[in-house]
Amino acid sequence: MFFASDNAGPVHPEIMSALAQANQGYAMPYGADEIMDQVRAKIREIFEAPDAAVYLVATGTAANSLALSSYVQPWQGIYCSPLSHINVDECNAPEFYSGGAKLVHVGPDDKMTAEALRSAVAGTVEGDVHVTQRGPVSVTQVTEMGRVYSLDELQGLGAVAKGYGLPMHLDGARFSNALVALGCTAAEMTWKAGVDVVSFGGTKNGCMGVEAVVLFDPDKAWEFELRRKRGAQLFSKHRYLSAQMEAYLKDDLWKRSAAQANAACTRLAEGLRSIDDMALRAEPQANMIFVDMPRALHQRLQQNGAKYAIWGDWQTGAPDEMLKSRLVCDWSMTDALIDQFLKIARK
Amino acid sequence: MFFASDNAGPVHPEIMSALAQANQGYAMPYGADEIMDQVRAKIREIFEAPDAAVYLVATGTAANSLALSSYVQPWQGIYCSPLSHINVDECNAPEFYSGGAKLVHVGPDDKMTAEALRSAVAGTVEGDVHVTQRGPVSVTQVTEMGRVYSLDELQGLGAVAKGYGLPMHLDGARFSNALVALGCTAAEMTWKAGVDVVSFGGTKNGCMGVEAVVLFDPDKAWEFELRRKRGAQLFSKHRYLSAQMEAYLKDDLWKRSAAQANAACTRLAEGLRSIDDMALRAEPQANMIFVDMPRALHQRLQQNGAKYAIWGDWQTGAPDEMLKSRLVCDWSMTDALIDQFLKIARK
Amino acid sequence: MFFASDNAGPVHPEIMSALAQANQGYAMPYGADEIMDQVRAKIREIFEAPDAAVYLVATGTAANSLALSSYVQPWQGIYCSPLSHINVDECNAPEFYSGGAKLVHVGPDDKMTAEALRSAVAGTVEGDVHVTQRGPVSVTQVTEMGRVYSLDELQGLGAVAKGYGLPMHLDGARFSNALVALGCTAAEMTWKAGVDVVSFGGTKNGCMGVEAVVLFDPDKAWEFELRRKRGAQLFSKHRYLSAQMEAYLKDDLWKRSAAQANAACTRLAEGLRSIDDMALRAEPQANMIFVDMPRALHQRLQQNGAKYAIWGDWQTGAPDEMLKSRLVCDWSMTDALIDQFLKIARK
Amino acid sequence: MFFASDNAGPVHPEIMSALAQANQGYAMPYGADEIMDQVRAKIREIFEAPDAAVYLVATGTAANSLALSSYVQPWQGIYCSPLSHINVDECNAPEFYSGGAKLVHVGPDDKMTAEALRSAVAGTVEGDVHVTQRGPVSVTQVTEMGRVYSLDELQGLGAVAKGYGLPMHLDGARFSNALVALGCTAAEMTWKAGVDVVSFGGTKNGCMGVEAVVLFDPDKAWEFELRRKRGAQLFSKHRYLSAQMEAYLKDDLWKRSAAQANAACTRLAEGLRSIDDMALRAEPQANMIFVDMPRALHQRLQQNGAKYAIWGDWQTGAPDEMLKSRLVCDWSMTDALIDQFLKIARK
Repeated sequence: MFFASDNAGPVHPEIMSALAQANQGYAMPYGADEIMDQVRAKIREIFEAPDAAVYLVATGTAANSLALSSYVQPWQGIYCSPLSHINVDECNAPEFYSGGAKLVHVGPDDKMTAEALRSAVAGTVEGDVHVTQRGPVSVTQVTEMGRVYSLDELQGLGAVAKGYGLPMHLDGARFSNALVALGCTAAEMTWKAGVDVVSFGGTKNGCMGVEAVVLFDPDKAWEFELRRKRGAQLFSKHRYLSAQMEAYLKDDLWKRSAAQANAACTRLAEGLRSIDDMALRAEPQANMIFVDMPRALHQRLQQNGAKYAIWGDWQTGAPDEMLKSRLVCDWSMTDALIDQFLKIARK
Repeated sequence: MFFASDNAGPVHPEIMSALAQANQGYAMPYGADEIMDQVRAKIREIFEAPDAAVYLVATGTAANSLALSSYVQPWQGIYCSPLSHINVDECNAPEFYSGGAKLVHVGPDDKMTAEALRSAVAGTVEGDVHVTQRGPVSVTQVTEMGRVYSLDELQGLGAVAKGYGLPMHLDGARFSNALVALGCTAAEMTWKAGVDVVSFGGTKNGCMGVEAVVLFDPDKAWEFELRRKRGAQLFSKHRYLSAQMEAYLKDDLWKRSAAQANAACTRLAEGLRSIDDMALRAEPQANMIFVDMPRALHQRLQQNGAKYAIWGDWQTGAPDEMLKSRLVCDWSMTDALIDQFLKIARK
Repeated sequence: MFFASDNAGPVHPEIMSALAQANQGYAMPYGADEIMDQVRAKIREIFEAPDAAVYLVATGTAANSLALSSYVQPWQGIYCSPLSHINVDECNAPEFYSGGAKLVHVGPDDKMTAEALRSAVAGTVEGDVHVTQRGPVSVTQVTEMGRVYSLDELQGLGAVAKGYGLPMHLDGARFSNALVALGCTAAEMTWKAGVDVVSFGGTKNGCMGVEAVVLFDPDKAWEFELRRKRGAQLFSKHRYLSAQMEAYLKDDLWKRSAAQANAACTRLAEGLRSIDDMALRAEPQANMIFVDMPRALHQRLQQNGAKYAIWGDWQTGAPDEMLKSRLVCDWSMTDALIDQFLKIARK
Repeated sequence: MFFASDNAGPVHPEIMSALAQANQGYAMPYGADEIMDQVRAKIREIFEAPDAAVYLVATGTAANSLALSSYVQPWQGIYCSPLSHINVDECNAPEFYSGGAKLVHVGPDDKMTAEALRSAVAGTVEGDVHVTQRGPVSVTQVTEMGRVYSLDELQGLGAVAKGYGLPMHLDGARFSNALVALGCTAAEMTWKAGVDVVSFGGTKNGCMGVEAVVLFDPDKAWEFELRRKRGAQLFSKHRYLSAQMEAYLKDDLWKRSAAQANAACTRLAEGLRSIDDMALRAEPQANMIFVDMPRALHQRLQQNGAKYAIWGDWQTGAPDEMLKSRLVCDWSMTDALIDQFLKIARK
């Protein structure tokens, strides 16, 4: 019963098979392998972007940091939610890769509104050498609180960015979960809404460790390659990144896995809703649930082996005090495990 | 007939098996997996360093950059060969990770002598705020020209470093090949010779993509963890790095693979020596050969599908002009391929 | 009638004299001049810190960036007010000098409370490698909104910092104005309250361009010197920085100038209070006034040559709309100019 | 008898007067002062570059670091002499300001030849992501060994740079000394020879602390301003930089001072040539002399108060061992002091 994150489950068997199959003879290193050619073509097809530059890296932080650093100068700001992964979960990696850009908070929560973004950008006086200069907008889809921007919302943000001539980045660590939830195309969720560069996540959705960075402006390609190498993120045995991504895209595995994860989350939410003590903070929109429950209930779940994120001390304190928790389902979550969890919670 | 590098062969089957076996259920992310506990214990045992801090990353450049940045200040120099990988093959990654340290060349070639090192360090005036300050020594074992430092030579460098109170780093992308060639222990080749931090390579010797960084001073551990995360080199699904390394160390696979690669190289060298047109620059000491041959011979090999590094234009020019080449064998190189190569070369 | 800032007035005649007097013969460069010896001794005496390391630089941003970078790691945060100069007026210089540290806002306004600081620090989970780590606290005295921390308030912040083992920096661009306002000693306002390193400003208080950085821990000295040189802030003809600072400290010029500036501000505030249309936001505590006034009044002042900072468009809009302004007095502000300003405002 | 450097003499009286004169009333800060308008116009006139962007900073290291960082990416190299000031005397400031670019040595000595430069640039394989990429060329005029590039030599370097599409920087800490020696125009020594950006030194030639950075491409202006501010090199009381530069350019003071320094050096060289024990390494071309002399002679000079740079231990060793020394004359060096020095040397 592991609901702590979607980064702890096993690799999807189809990806393991692809790795085994790729393990034949010699392959050109550093991204010159043939599988990468297929991956590039496939991503361009999926994103309806025949000229896009496509690169693979192995961690989400690398994808975000490299993508952002290609679009920001060190004297600029990156407009983002104060709760965004780049702000709170990457140990200053964006600052490192950008040479010291500042993350400018567009608050108050996980989801930026066009109005808040416009206000933040407008608040940066143009032509004043003293202040952090305007820079890219970074949007997280799915947000850190499990919410999904609608296409309208994304377009609204994109319109503000474009209005000010600012580039836009999409942190898509859970890109597939959002896309499946919205039932839209990859193009609609990205460049059609004004996105210039995407971190297209694989790791949280069944891969071993691979993320694609998709840059819609091919003129950014060579600089990105240099940044990737300088960032120590260029793999010699690159075919094993390619093979993961190739399998991930094949037969829509990326969508199938995301749909499974989202469905598991829906099932879990339904079960939780039927338990009086469980207070869902909101309906899940993708594969994350935020729920409050009494300490006693937490204790029971923990003691029975359930793993999930809890804020505060679950061991000591009043049994009826409500504690916050986060539950995440990945593609491998089974109905049986969910039902087992719910059974313990109900008891 | 792929002799271009040891980064293009397949992953060893024992490592593929370990990955498949690790792919069960959930595992704690970010290095908290149980396999990592075994890896840590095993590396400490191999290095006879019960307190060493041990971390895994996925590229050699990451291992070197993170290891060095833990031991250098941005106003210092890193003493290294002008031909070292960190100087010529990492697109300024050491400068990036260190915040702008300078690579100070201890020339003239791939192998630093204690005398040259002493002279370089002594040439840095102490207490002069204007100059690049003294910093760590970085030694590459096997060197970029395929040579292996003897234990005496390493101890000589270590003595200079220690005499000046400077830390010493070993770039061991081909650590195993050197160790097998020397027939020594890991401790002898590292801390017993004065090494403080090692990049212990796996990728070039049969792994998919994993390198261990071993810091003999455990007080460096937490800072290293922060640097690794900030460098976007911390893997969520870390168990797949652990599993590679676990298999690599099991039953001495690291030594077996290196011995195979070195033996293949010896066989190749013997064959080449028997060909008049082939001028070996030196006896191979590990798994690399540098050999000069006439353009016509190059052309024949290339046209028959042999892959290796060549300096200069092999297609145009006098047929008897001697061109330089580098041939590398990895663990997977077979006698059959070597013999096929030699047969074409002889013809 | 220049109230736009305290960085635009002339250099105090005593400082000009000192520069002329220092301009004799040769002097050892890079801080080895004899005047610097006197400066060092005098600052140690003033701060009652016989071991303090004392350095001069030429801009306030340099003082802050170098001081902070000596106490922060790039993976850490710097706790500061969201309105602090380091956050909003230095074009990411602290991020540059620190190698990418993050400025963590302790809000909501210009003056941090001990409670808000404690809450921010406590909110940074210890031992979590993903988050921005705890780092130094930076306090601005006088604040950007013209307020002065009491000694109690400073001690409160210092106690929180010390409680968590964090260093504390004081941005004292207007150090003297605050000290005169509090009527305390330099030691009380710094190390006795828990401050580890001070930017002791001269430029805004009658100097040409000099700031002292005072580090109470002498073990930080050499690293600071290297940072200063690497930051291109080490002056060859250093005696002209020394001479400014020497004159600034002589016969309490630093206090006399600050007292003049504060007194001018008091006079100005009194005058403004007697004008119905002028709405002082708060009593001035040092040498800055924030006052709201109708657009018509603004227009009259501007048209008559008054210079001060205004937020918003003073030229277009309803004449009775209240606009915000900031008025600053430096040491050279005269009663005559203040009275002239008030006369125009009253009319 | 101070010949240690040209950074230790007094400020020229004309510059002191200008500072006093500028010290009237209020002036717009941060480079918006009226004197700066005159400086900008004058420099454009002198350089015959009506569109050039012109900025002032206070140290030579700042001028070089900011100029270079405007023309280099962190994954590139800066081609320079291994003896250049940026390489050996700036404590990694160029690496800091550029975010980690590498200084690539074009050896073997202080003066790059077009051939050596071409060979170095050609040696950087284009399109290879692993290597330090091609970047700007930095030429030092006067060199660190006191030599002056002829216009032909500069044009030769410029032609190589332009042939490869690389920008060229001139470190002109002693720009005026070289120009006077060559008897050429500022345009000839810079953009007509292919230079894109110049550090135009004032400090070593009679100013208190001011260097101009002249960028011939005005499109670089705004980014330079941001870099200057972020580098903490933007002065609030900027008029005092402007006033120095204004006086420096007025009535050719920059040339007059340089001519005085060069003439003093010529006089000194003539005297030294007449002393048997003095072995001039080369005829002085500007204001620096490198001369070898026996230890005994050194000792006598030192004991009589002469100051100059010596390599090695002048106090201990054989009296007839030849030691190396460097003697520099600045504008303020008098015939009397030179004669006094020579008299001691002769005795």
